[in-house]
Amino acid sequence: MAVRLGVLAEIAGAELRGDPQILISKVATLQQAGPDEVSFLANTKYRRHLKKTAAAAVILRPEDAEYCSTALLLSDNPYLAYARVSRQLNPVPAFEPGCHVSAVVDTLASIDPSAFVGPCAVVGAGSRIGAGVYIGPGCIIEHDCVVADESRLVANVTLCHGTHVGERCLIHPGAVLGSDGFGLANDDGRWEKVPQTGRVRLGNDVEVGANTTIDRGALEDTVLEDGVKLDNLIQIAHNVIVGTNTAMASGVAVAGSTHIGRNCTLGGMVGLVGHLDIGDNVHFSGASMVTRSFSEPGYYSGNLPAMDNKQWRKAVARIRQLDEMAKRIQRLEKKVESVSTDQDG
Amino acid sequence: MAVRLGVLAEIAGAELRGDPQILISKVATLQQAGPDEVSFLANTKYRRHLKKTAAAAVILRPEDAEYCSTALLLSDNPYLAYARVSRQLNPVPAFEPGCHVSAVVDTLASIDPSAFVGPCAVVGAGSRIGAGVYIGPGCIIEHDCVVADESRLVANVTLCHGTHVGERCLIHPGAVLGSDGFGLANDDGRWEKVPQTGRVRLGNDVEVGANTTIDRGALEDTVLEDGVKLDNLIQIAHNVIVGTNTAMASGVAVAGSTHIGRNCTLGGMVGLVGHLDIGDNVHFSGASMVTRSFSEPGYYSGNLPAMDNKQWRKAVARIRQLDEMAKRIQRLEKKVESVSTDQDG
Amino acid sequence: MAVRLGVLAEIAGAELRGDPQILISKVATLQQAGPDEVSFLANTKYRRHLKKTAAAAVILRPEDAEYCSTALLLSDNPYLAYARVSRQLNPVPAFEPGCHVSAVVDTLASIDPSAFVGPCAVVGAGSRIGAGVYIGPGCIIEHDCVVADESRLVANVTLCHGTHVGERCLIHPGAVLGSDGFGLANDDGRWEKVPQTGRVRLGNDVEVGANTTIDRGALEDTVLEDGVKLDNLIQIAHNVIVGTNTAMASGVAVAGSTHIGRNCTLGGMVGLVGHLDIGDNVHFSGASMVTRSFSEPGYYSGNLPAMDNKQWRKAVARIRQLDEMAKRIQRLEKKVESVSTDQDG
Repeated sequence: MAVRLGVLAEIAGAELRGDPQILISKVATLQQAGPDEVSFLANTKYRRHLKKTAAAAVILRPEDAEYCSTALLLSDNPYLAYARVSRQLNPVPAFEPGCHVSAVVDTLASIDPSAFVGPCAVVGAGSRIGAGVYIGPGCIIEHDCVVADESRLVANVTLCHGTHVGERCLIHPGAVLGSDGFGLANDDGRWEKVPQTGRVRLGNDVEVGANTTIDRGALEDTVLEDGVKLDNLIQIAHNVIVGTNTAMASGVAVAGSTHIGRNCTLGGMVGLVGHLDIGDNVHFSGASMVTRSFSEPGYYSGNLPAMDNKQWRKAVARIRQLDEMAKRIQRLEKKVESVSTDQDG
Repeated sequence: MAVRLGVLAEIAGAELRGDPQILISKVATLQQAGPDEVSFLANTKYRRHLKKTAAAAVILRPEDAEYCSTALLLSDNPYLAYARVSRQLNPVPAFEPGCHVSAVVDTLASIDPSAFVGPCAVVGAGSRIGAGVYIGPGCIIEHDCVVADESRLVANVTLCHGTHVGERCLIHPGAVLGSDGFGLANDDGRWEKVPQTGRVRLGNDVEVGANTTIDRGALEDTVLEDGVKLDNLIQIAHNVIVGTNTAMASGVAVAGSTHIGRNCTLGGMVGLVGHLDIGDNVHFSGASMVTRSFSEPGYYSGNLPAMDNKQWRKAVARIRQLDEMAKRIQRLEKKVESVSTDQDG
Repeated sequence: MAVRLGVLAEIAGAELRGDPQILISKVATLQQAGPDEVSFLANTKYRRHLKKTAAAAVILRPEDAEYCSTALLLSDNPYLAYARVSRQLNPVPAFEPGCHVSAVVDTLASIDPSAFVGPCAVVGAGSRIGAGVYIGPGCIIEHDCVVADESRLVANVTLCHGTHVGERCLIHPGAVLGSDGFGLANDDGRWEKVPQTGRVRLGNDVEVGANTTIDRGALEDTVLEDGVKLDNLIQIAHNVIVGTNTAMASGVAVAGSTHIGRNCTLGGMVGLVGHLDIGDNVHFSGASMVTRSFSEPGYYSGNLPAMDNKQWRKAVARIRQLDEMAKRIQRLEKKVESVSTDQDG
């Protein structure tokens, strides 16, 4: 599957400098690319690799062009241009439609003739599988779910009853959508279960990482709007709403009923307590613990970066004394003030 | 499935104010409830919604009654009353007993005639599945496990050999019980495996969240006592013991051989190092890192909440200097003391 | 399966004091061991249990011998000696080779006759399963994977296409290897997928914990070298390289393109941001947030240990004021200096 450089330039929305007839078959790093491969430079830190690259062509910013003697695809967003080139060269593999003989599809389920249901997958009553959908091996789809057109459940994914997956979604192995929210009422120490009667609803173009869990709502639904991207091992609790195009790195946990705006980014291991309102364009760096609402766009952080263990031990001991230290400073200020005054007087 | 309000009041242990004959078919939020639905008010923050609710009835505290003109169920614990009403209106779905034709049940396994074993589920030799048990699709039960009466494994759950699940337990998709503990002996840099010969034992009424992992013991067992409730993506290491009615939110990790008392609550992402003893009624707020034993009942915390990134950068730089700052305060105190003394002298 | 104490001493590389003919059938704790069981003392904290143990023999350091009256296996590394004795007494269970009738093996897959493929497992085209390999029930192996000799996938493991597992690896339930890395290019707010064309490669003797996820590389491979040991619920992002014999406890997350050296240990819940270089013999304590490269061997930490909630509230409030506190100290120093100078003058 080789594509001419001129075609790739057009797909990438990039300006071509060089022979449009060159055949490109793969993408590769600057160091590893060969004569039928295209590479890219998005991070100027790696500019030194431009000189020696054996790539047929390089995607880069106009200002980096002078450092490179190969054919070029010039773009102001080379990483995006590279993504499009790579998708052209690495299309999602086609599949033979149909249900594998070992799949267990309920007679009351509806499977589009262009969809695939893989080996040992299970589809329950009332579930609808749309056109071009790929249900990979070992996936379990309980009753009354919807998987809309062109979505892809890679393998061993679980959709609990009533889960709604939009179009062109991609759900990685081990993800669980629609498990019960953690709803418990306390009766003098003993916990009683609160039924979780809401569902999980995903918009279009949502990606859900491996072993990520998204709980169904308690009464209303848990919602991921269009274009939300979740990495692996993320927890989305009941009744959370995540706005369009918000992305979360691995290990994030969002507690119940918290609403997150659009175009936010959450670094790895960020935690949000429940019932918060996070606005649009809010960004949290990795491992931040979010304990209050943040409505304003901005960049927020909260963690104690790793340091030498001895230095850390001292710092932590001092943190425990901080309130007392602050009071000592205050006393000193008063005393120094009075001494100065005495002198002046 | 509609139930008369009078019946629900009795089930909830609530005092009825209104017509006991009203038919209720669902639970809903105050804002969304309609004329055949019951709602509740547990958090006074939402009291403003009482006035406009179209619910047939509302469960609330006696002191909130004056704000609401619908039929009422009065209870000092409205969330608990609501849980009971909701369970009555949303019973766990019944199922047809029997083993699905695609299930693989070892001839030496014992399945109660009233139990269900779902599509593509596997039950190994020597395992015993009790009365009314639901083993969902894709569940793998290795040899010599026990799943006691009325327990429910939703889907894609793995029980490794010898795992014992009590009565009325609920285990969500992707949970793994009985995987090897992380036991390694070091031989001059190289790790050698230490066999994990203990098991996992769950009491009755235990809930285990999606993709949560509970490791088998190294020599003795890992134990979750009656009524323990675990949310999603939790790690329970080998030889941990968790006391009755203790609840943990998502992302908690408990390291090996730590013992946790009864009626504790652990917020999301709390971490406990190994070999600790945590008493009864101990509560940790989210993301606390627990590095020592806490025997006294109480509320404990430890994390650095998110703040503006610039403020955080300055704070972290200062934390590194804290020990030096403390020493400077001490020197100042001495100096000021001597200056004062000089003056007085 | 009983073994004579003399044989165990030889296997353990330990010096025997006592009757080599004693038959040992199990390992147990000092408190629980009976007359056909061997126990061990690795942590001197438990020395008090030596006196009353009913074990047939105890593995311990020469300096602890005087506290124990049973037969002894003397070793400078009693935990390692115990690991070897226990492996002898608890061998990995043998299995009947062959593919279970419910397994779905592609006609273009190659399964060694000595391998086992369990119930409801799936093996895709072009995948090679080596000699003595155990593929447990419910495992999904996509196309073009390799599982080399003597490796063991316990149950419900997913290997995405092209994943390479070395010899004698052990992969626990729910682990996902080869899922897409989290590669996204931003087009004016909207995310576009970057194909992940690399693979996951595991060396020999690697252990991967339950529900751990290891993403395939973006262009080059994600690599775990020989002897790497990962606990449960760990995230290894695309293009991470983990050096020989490095071990990570549960909940660790390593972001993309970070390289970790050999013989490192990462405590539970440690997080590393992307593109870092961590040297050999670097150790991070639990919950450390690693935001820069650490090239020197050493022990590093960063977290705020749990304390009383009231003390913590005060400390956190003061941390926000730290920069101002530091400036007040500086002002005080100047003022006191000038007062002293005034006096002296």
